[in-house]
Amino acid sequence: MRKAPDHRRDYVEFMELQTRWSDNDVFGHINNMVYYSLFDTAISSWLVNNGILNLHKDRQVSVIAQNGCTYFSEVAFPDKLTAGLRICHIGHSSVRYELGLFRNEEENASAEGHFVHVYLNALTRKPEVIGEPLRVVLSRLLRPEAVGMEE
Amino acid sequence: MRKAPDHRRDYVEFMELQTRWSDNDVFGHINNMVYYSLFDTAISSWLVNNGILNLHKDRQVSVIAQNGCTYFSEVAFPDKLTAGLRICHIGHSSVRYELGLFRNEEENASAEGHFVHVYLNALTRKPEVIGEPLRVVLSRLLRPEAVGMEE
Amino acid sequence: MRKAPDHRRDYVEFMELQTRWSDNDVFGHINNMVYYSLFDTAISSWLVNNGILNLHKDRQVSVIAQNGCTYFSEVAFPDKLTAGLRICHIGHSSVRYELGLFRNEEENASAEGHFVHVYLNALTRKPEVIGEPLRVVLSRLLRPEAVGMEE
Amino acid sequence: MRKAPDHRRDYVEFMELQTRWSDNDVFGHINNMVYYSLFDTAISSWLVNNGILNLHKDRQVSVIAQNGCTYFSEVAFPDKLTAGLRICHIGHSSVRYELGLFRNEEENASAEGHFVHVYLNALTRKPEVIGEPLRVVLSRLLRPEAVGMEE
Repeated sequence: MRKAPDHRRDYVEFMELQTRWSDNDVFGHINNMVYYSLFDTAISSWLVNNGILNLHKDRQVSVIAQNGCTYFSEVAFPDKLTAGLRICHIGHSSVRYELGLFRNEEENASAEGHFVHVYLNALTRKPEVIGEPLRVVLSRLLRPEAVGMEE
Repeated sequence: MRKAPDHRRDYVEFMELQTRWSDNDVFGHINNMVYYSLFDTAISSWLVNNGILNLHKDRQVSVIAQNGCTYFSEVAFPDKLTAGLRICHIGHSSVRYELGLFRNEEENASAEGHFVHVYLNALTRKPEVIGEPLRVVLSRLLRPEAVGMEE
Repeated sequence: MRKAPDHRRDYVEFMELQTRWSDNDVFGHINNMVYYSLFDTAISSWLVNNGILNLHKDRQVSVIAQNGCTYFSEVAFPDKLTAGLRICHIGHSSVRYELGLFRNEEENASAEGHFVHVYLNALTRKPEVIGEPLRVVLSRLLRPEAVGMEE
Repeated sequence: MRKAPDHRRDYVEFMELQTRWSDNDVFGHINNMVYYSLFDTAISSWLVNNGILNLHKDRQVSVIAQNGCTYFSEVAFPDKLTAGLRICHIGHSSVRYELGLFRNEEENASAEGHFVHVYLNALTRKPEVIGEPLRVVLSRLLRPEAVGMEE
């Protein structure tokens, strides 16, 4: 049996996300690929707003090593969505983001996703240690109970 | 030489539209196909908000007969966009929507699009006269100077 | 350390997949959401070709309960891609597909994905046992060594 | 009344295009935005195959100034599509591509599109005259009767 969906209180930061007419597929709900675009947007927007994403000029780039999504219940245009965002682990060169997608005013997540980013040197494309300034900013997304935890 | 871009004052209704990370293509600006998704969303949202779009159960359906877009200047994630919306013509069975896409606080459109919808009988798929109740609602999007005009 | 990528010989069926110009994102490679669209297309095409997907009229519908992707190396338009497809488990009401994405003539997967489908009664939306005729067809995608295995 | 759809014989080059499961929208046919992605892919592939598109290093870049599409009849996944491609005008700094989209073995276009590309200096972003080598290659897409025509 799979776990119950998270609540809003399980996340650290939130972002409202708009649905688009073309997000709906033949079943009249949002196609699975769109969830990934929404999660990507929530992460990127948070990074931009926190001054640590420079889309074109970074010396270090992050790539997605792995991602995934568990679907609990349908969402569809024209629903208003809210993404909940947290980080559960910051490793040497990788970060694991976890996201919940909340439909309209609902308290339980309709879907939960995760993205593992790995930081690479922009020239050598080899993994690099996440520098202290970036690590400090990313730590804002750690859940209080998770701060200091080692995986 | 092509026409100058429209101003916000040239439109009747407005809708804020969110950009997504994946909207940007290799040139770092929003891919042309995304404009159509945004325009579609602005039209559909207006129809939903005005009570005349029932996504699954309509006896009459509208299909897109023609659309197009003129691009004046770039927009990119994470810009905030506003769509301006107007109708310039309501025919027997067709409606022509015109849209402007405005970047952040800019007054001149970055792009202008149009969509021609044709109303069909949901069963026969033949064009049908737009009924009076729908025509009344659609007329709210006619520009003041255009009301009563015949094409 | 994560597992090494699969080889083509690890999959049962194959499908060539075309990349599109708009698949490339600002980094010049295919955006993560596109992988899910490609995997979905490979699964759906196989189901259509094997006579068990009727897009609009099924009494039973499948929904995606969970999916995910691990990214090993970049692919980009205009690469030609091949999806490898297998099923590793057929449960009471669920099926787990596993996919490898191969770039041009490469033998090692550039990415590996999985999709868990759950079969629902189209009216009640409750999970239903996968009927024997469907189970027989799906079994064609089990790897020889996996046939008869219980999870 | 609008013009009849073009035939395959009205185009100069052809490219097979794959549909994807997620291309279908709630109406069970390909969403209008997808046509633009398919047209873009046909143009870009032809340019790549003819040695005149270097996605990342060009001194001159082309941007889309205008595009549009007329829809005659539905196409849907899993249809196989063929794009017909021609150029109807090569100006000082612009090119107008015209495309037909053909469903399976059909001879009449299901949709017709056009894309106007303008060539810019990659640094100044100002329109530039299309150089003779590029002009020679692009001329291969002019229809025989159109060669030498001035607009």
